[in-house]
Amino acid sequence: MSLKYEIIKTVGKSRRGKLYTKHGVVNTPAFMPVGTCATVKAMMPESVAATGAEILLGNTYHLMLRPGADLVEKMGGLHKFMHWDKPILTDSGGFQVMSLTGLRKLTEEGVTFSSHVDGKKFFLSPEESIKIQHKLDSNITMCMDECVKLPAPYEKVKKSVEMSMRWAKRSKDAFVDRDGYGIFGIQQGGDYEDLRAYSAEKLKEIGFDGYAIGGLAVGEGQETMFKVLDYAPQMLPADKPRYLMGVGRPDDIVGAVLRGVDMFDCVMPTRSGRTAQAFTRYGTVNIRNARHREDPRPLEEGCDCPLCRNFSRAYIHHLQKCNEILGVMLLTWHNIRYYQRLMQGLRTAIETDTLQEFAAKFYADQAKGDIEEL
Amino acid sequence: MSLKYEIIKTVGKSRRGKLYTKHGVVNTPAFMPVGTCATVKAMMPESVAATGAEILLGNTYHLMLRPGADLVEKMGGLHKFMHWDKPILTDSGGFQVMSLTGLRKLTEEGVTFSSHVDGKKFFLSPEESIKIQHKLDSNITMCMDECVKLPAPYEKVKKSVEMSMRWAKRSKDAFVDRDGYGIFGIQQGGDYEDLRAYSAEKLKEIGFDGYAIGGLAVGEGQETMFKVLDYAPQMLPADKPRYLMGVGRPDDIVGAVLRGVDMFDCVMPTRSGRTAQAFTRYGTVNIRNARHREDPRPLEEGCDCPLCRNFSRAYIHHLQKCNEILGVMLLTWHNIRYYQRLMQGLRTAIETDTLQEFAAKFYADQAKGDIEEL
Repeated sequence: MSLKYEIIKTVGKSRRGKLYTKHGVVNTPAFMPVGTCATVKAMMPESVAATGAEILLGNTYHLMLRPGADLVEKMGGLHKFMHWDKPILTDSGGFQVMSLTGLRKLTEEGVTFSSHVDGKKFFLSPEESIKIQHKLDSNITMCMDECVKLPAPYEKVKKSVEMSMRWAKRSKDAFVDRDGYGIFGIQQGGDYEDLRAYSAEKLKEIGFDGYAIGGLAVGEGQETMFKVLDYAPQMLPADKPRYLMGVGRPDDIVGAVLRGVDMFDCVMPTRSGRTAQAFTRYGTVNIRNARHREDPRPLEEGCDCPLCRNFSRAYIHHLQKCNEILGVMLLTWHNIRYYQRLMQGLRTAIETDTLQEFAAKFYADQAKGDIEEL
Repeated sequence: MSLKYEIIKTVGKSRRGKLYTKHGVVNTPAFMPVGTCATVKAMMPESVAATGAEILLGNTYHLMLRPGADLVEKMGGLHKFMHWDKPILTDSGGFQVMSLTGLRKLTEEGVTFSSHVDGKKFFLSPEESIKIQHKLDSNITMCMDECVKLPAPYEKVKKSVEMSMRWAKRSKDAFVDRDGYGIFGIQQGGDYEDLRAYSAEKLKEIGFDGYAIGGLAVGEGQETMFKVLDYAPQMLPADKPRYLMGVGRPDDIVGAVLRGVDMFDCVMPTRSGRTAQAFTRYGTVNIRNARHREDPRPLEEGCDCPLCRNFSRAYIHHLQKCNEILGVMLLTWHNIRYYQRLMQGLRTAIETDTLQEFAAKFYADQAKGDIEEL
């Protein structure tokens, strides 16, 4: 138990907290940009920090394949390797093994799979995953679990969550406790309330530095996700951070913060930066659309990112039409900055007890749509 | 004649000068990174400036196709459009029309060609090229000329240079003189000394703000290029800047500065940044090579670019293996910074009358090769 978490304000179910790690403080609610292969795609690490991001997520699956955990360890750990001296959370690799690889064999012991890069065989178990995350020098290690795609029958989810809880225990046992480092358990149970309760109880018995809500944003839709979030976070310890894995769109995040979630990660802002989609106060904008061709306005009035400060929509449209890397760089930066502005807004709203007003304005603005599309 | 050029020191044939434009001063000898489509590929404009670059080259051919000169003009000119407030030089578009497009028809009047983007037909003449460069708000407009690939028979080069000189006159006549803006003539004549002399005389008769040496780096090899540079620059006015178009590798540049050239442009540093090739004091390095896989050292000891300051060779190697955009961003930055360090070194060497020593050390270091390859 070596990560201190301090809750400085609670409004309804929502919390404003501070998570203390060896590499600095994370203010929650927090959004973690994804740095899959030891880089947040198309961003200099200084630029990621400039967006306000205080913690990154690294993918154990990708890093164990390339460049390999031993090499990262030899280079002084992931922080030094990728020149990011703030906190890092790593996932267990389990989810990517299940979704990205072929020829996998799942047993109680772990998963045997073939690398999507070169077909080479690997074995990943809870113990092995924790060991890899240790070598990466991750501040927040995640338990290895199994994640079931929804909808799924009760018996299937039950069998899976039971194994995941045995894996949670094995993960915790394999974790080497150090000051400023911690391990999070992951609640599973799909959209079955009793299985979520069972999972929460098992995790609390084991004891973790934080608790993730897993198995959502896997095809169930926002309505089902919010239904689960109406009860799932409250089953987890009130004094520890709650992390909703792989979520999500801006409106998912606002809804989840209202339901008591503290941490998020998602590839949405970075991936969208590579497909010409921008997030703004007034909803998403596809910058490839011909209506931007001669538009001298910034993408989002009032945004302080380099794209909005220095360039017109016409210019970004031009870069995208020409497939210029700078277009990807600027849109990625804007999108991450948008997410961080959203989190800053949520944190301030909790601090000042204006969260309901903030959320109402957020949904109203999003509903307006981009100005020219009115 | 509205660009002031001041030569502050001469050593042998080499000159240390200052070119004054509406958008600031260019210290020569100068290297211009290429910003083909209104962006130096994979670089933020602030980053380009941070490398020490004081002037960029824009490609008229690419810009006339996308986004079009009228749009750039409407957006306030190329400087504002691409957020680069330092000087810009544009080529005439002629060279790209001849090398990139199909179905072209060349007459005394100009060239009809089909866009490589969508096949649309365009016509480019000296008058049209100058008009486009005016709309782009280029500080240095280049005459439209014809460039013959070497080796080429005497009669072919003679016929071509004669037309290019008629085009030079038409270009000059079409140019709108403004304070802080200028137009450069382009000497042609292949590797025939009398044709180079003829071309220089014609250009001087017309009178330009600067004089380019064209028709080199088109397949003739360094030996022939240097042979031409042994006489060609001296045929041009001593009090005006001399610009060697499309050159070149670092050793080309050092050799050309020794022969009295003041300005250069080349896609080499940016293009190489996208193909894992790095320029260093000890020659080129292919960062994809397996020998870098576990190398904790910076790419080039003593270089102050972000790549060399913050990352190991192992990390850049990893980024390249994973085709990460950040790898391209960092290598491009390093390469442009390398070129700018080289130019700074040349300028200081001229100022301090140590150019021979500088050149000797440059060639000795380059000959050493990258450390691990010894």
